[in-house]
Amino acid sequence: MPSMRLEVVNTGTELLLGKVVNTHAAFIGRELFKLGLRVQRQTTVPDGEAIREALAEAFPRCDAILVTGGLGPTSDDITREIVAEMLGRPLRLDEGVLATIHGMFRERGLRQNAANDRQAMVPEGAVVLENPHGTAPGLHLPADGRAGSPHLFLLPGPPRELEPMFRNLVQPALAELAREGEAPPAWRNFRLHGVGESGLASILEPLLAGFGGLELGYCARLGEVDLRLVGAVESVEAASLVVRREFAMQIVVESETPIEEVVVGLLAERGETVATAESCTGGLIASTITDFPGSSAVFHRGYMTYSNEAKSDILGVPPALIEAHGAVSDEVALAMASGCLAASGATHAIAVSGIAGPGGGSEEKPVGTVHVALVSRGGAAFAKRYFFPLDRISFKQRVARLSLDLLRRRLRGIPLD
Amino acid sequence: MPSMRLEVVNTGTELLLGKVVNTHAAFIGRELFKLGLRVQRQTTVPDGEAIREALAEAFPRCDAILVTGGLGPTSDDITREIVAEMLGRPLRLDEGVLATIHGMFRERGLRQNAANDRQAMVPEGAVVLENPHGTAPGLHLPADGRAGSPHLFLLPGPPRELEPMFRNLVQPALAELAREGEAPPAWRNFRLHGVGESGLASILEPLLAGFGGLELGYCARLGEVDLRLVGAVESVEAASLVVRREFAMQIVVESETPIEEVVVGLLAERGETVATAESCTGGLIASTITDFPGSSAVFHRGYMTYSNEAKSDILGVPPALIEAHGAVSDEVALAMASGCLAASGATHAIAVSGIAGPGGGSEEKPVGTVHVALVSRGGAAFAKRYFFPLDRISFKQRVARLSLDLLRRRLRGIPLD
Repeated sequence: MPSMRLEVVNTGTELLLGKVVNTHAAFIGRELFKLGLRVQRQTTVPDGEAIREALAEAFPRCDAILVTGGLGPTSDDITREIVAEMLGRPLRLDEGVLATIHGMFRERGLRQNAANDRQAMVPEGAVVLENPHGTAPGLHLPADGRAGSPHLFLLPGPPRELEPMFRNLVQPALAELAREGEAPPAWRNFRLHGVGESGLASILEPLLAGFGGLELGYCARLGEVDLRLVGAVESVEAASLVVRREFAMQIVVESETPIEEVVVGLLAERGETVATAESCTGGLIASTITDFPGSSAVFHRGYMTYSNEAKSDILGVPPALIEAHGAVSDEVALAMASGCLAASGATHAIAVSGIAGPGGGSEEKPVGTVHVALVSRGGAAFAKRYFFPLDRISFKQRVARLSLDLLRRRLRGIPLD
Repeated sequence: MPSMRLEVVNTGTELLLGKVVNTHAAFIGRELFKLGLRVQRQTTVPDGEAIREALAEAFPRCDAILVTGGLGPTSDDITREIVAEMLGRPLRLDEGVLATIHGMFRERGLRQNAANDRQAMVPEGAVVLENPHGTAPGLHLPADGRAGSPHLFLLPGPPRELEPMFRNLVQPALAELAREGEAPPAWRNFRLHGVGESGLASILEPLLAGFGGLELGYCARLGEVDLRLVGAVESVEAASLVVRREFAMQIVVESETPIEEVVVGLLAERGETVATAESCTGGLIASTITDFPGSSAVFHRGYMTYSNEAKSDILGVPPALIEAHGAVSDEVALAMASGCLAASGATHAIAVSGIAGPGGGSEEKPVGTVHVALVSRGGAAFAKRYFFPLDRISFKQRVARLSLDLLRRRLRGIPLD
């Protein structure tokens, strides 16, 4: 098996109606990648007959197929029956599985019913994958060595049944199969702030053009880009040196750690704290910091000062300063940050004042304008105007990430501007 | 077109690696269902060449195909080029699109680069779908009337670009195409708070059993359930009367309006304001309120008082009270709310104090415990202990929704408990 071709087929009408988000596909992709395996295609079909066509198409091109759902007791759960028919492996009642199902019903004080007994039917030659969390066992139908006969893994739909079964039984089986193939590729992820996807690509791609078999992947979010390098270990390591050299200031972390965790970690290492004074982000910076469990050690308080009156009352911003420069200005953002530092006793204070929109903009200060200030005990005061013409919620996220990245730069001694 | 066959093809290596959950598939499924259309199959392929094979398979069986992703500026974004080649429609530079891209770069103060100019290449005969949120326009390639030539919609990958484009441009086009088919079913959505999915089902399903051809759909989120009734217009209207009668207090709104919008609207109608004093939610209640544009009229300030010292300093909670009852108690939550009301001058004040975890729990007050208080000028003070044993981020969301629902009930004169 030179390089295993794997596909995932999810059955479930609720997935196609959008009533449930398909978390299985992401879970399986993530777990397999840990083994150096990649899902080449993922397909969702409705409950019932539709899986037949999807499997018939996938058989000739795959080494292994993972199927989720359709093993339940109701009339539209027919994955087991269709697979048995397609492979010409008749279903037999498995007494061991039947006894397990009956035991589970007794234990839970439920009445047995014939619908559940159908779950004890096992195609000839299948390996039963135990399901301690539900009545439907999983099934592994090994490849028979002929072309167009991949390994098939039939797995239950509910995540709390599928996930432990996958980790305990499917992953080891696939790892075993993969060992017959090539060494898995090496990979490295960089999370960057302060450079866009196209800017990153335009600098890196010419520099990395000569690196054999190196694959670059990008995933951009508001204010953040993940860069993924995948390939032979030497290529990935050599390319990583280039990325580190070119983007030393923009790399938040060489992993997928969220920025709030990076910042909380840096503060905790130094025994320092941060406080926040938010206007247009309305508490999102504070809420983002406190998403991380360790945050209570480094974040004690914050202020949402939406109105001018609140800025003066709580943070001591002189009304005359607001009058002179407007609430959305470097001067007021700095005064907010200084007031926040004084009122909170924190080591660092972040303040933001801006226009999230859709209303409230002017020619001079259009929607998307924001002033961010950072002051620190014994450090230089910083304030700068930025412009993010985004929808309101994206704007808030963009400004929150930027604010945390400014603090990261200060904590790492990287220039803020 | 008797019954439109629709498929969704998502491109994105990050989806198959499980770094990003595929929310597009669910979003599109949900939105199309509102038109009475159903997605028959959804496929995810990696960035790059793989989309060619997936589209070649889908063409002969579809009336319309929605493709997401691969329109970006980097080298792995080649959906546009592959589709142009498959359909034999050469790419032409669209001067209008180019001007829009250049304008967007200028507005944001960014340097133009050639990578982005590629996004102005449009296949012959394609309709450009404007993208006010990003540089890549969407493209509609109409069916040419021959078999195996479905309508193709190429849409950008980032959700904040795709979702408005889908709602504003793709849905109307598909609705137009669907009008050539059967009449879509009627539907109505109820958003409820304070009743679970299974509780709702166990009360409603017996009452609605006699309603012909009525389909019930549920979508539960943290603290909230959406109930969807779909079917003939008479059934949906008659069933809606039953839902309104049985769940008068739990219905937040008969639509999918977020609760913050409902609460801001109710406050604005009365010329009232709210202030927040948050401990375990760390600013999330404030941030949720300020997600809605009208919020600045009704929300002027809030406090994040994570530490005990902050609760005393800022909100005037007596240290002896914290000593006597613990920070996580009805007494302290009430004192926080009263202090917040006094300090802010608002009409209503919400305060929360709890244990988000994973650390900090005890036998008496385990992780997931939270006390929520609501005080209003001229209204009774309310405080209650709740228990939500969830992960940290889900806990914060659950408590934020609950807090806003308590305020909704107060504003509507519904009992809080």
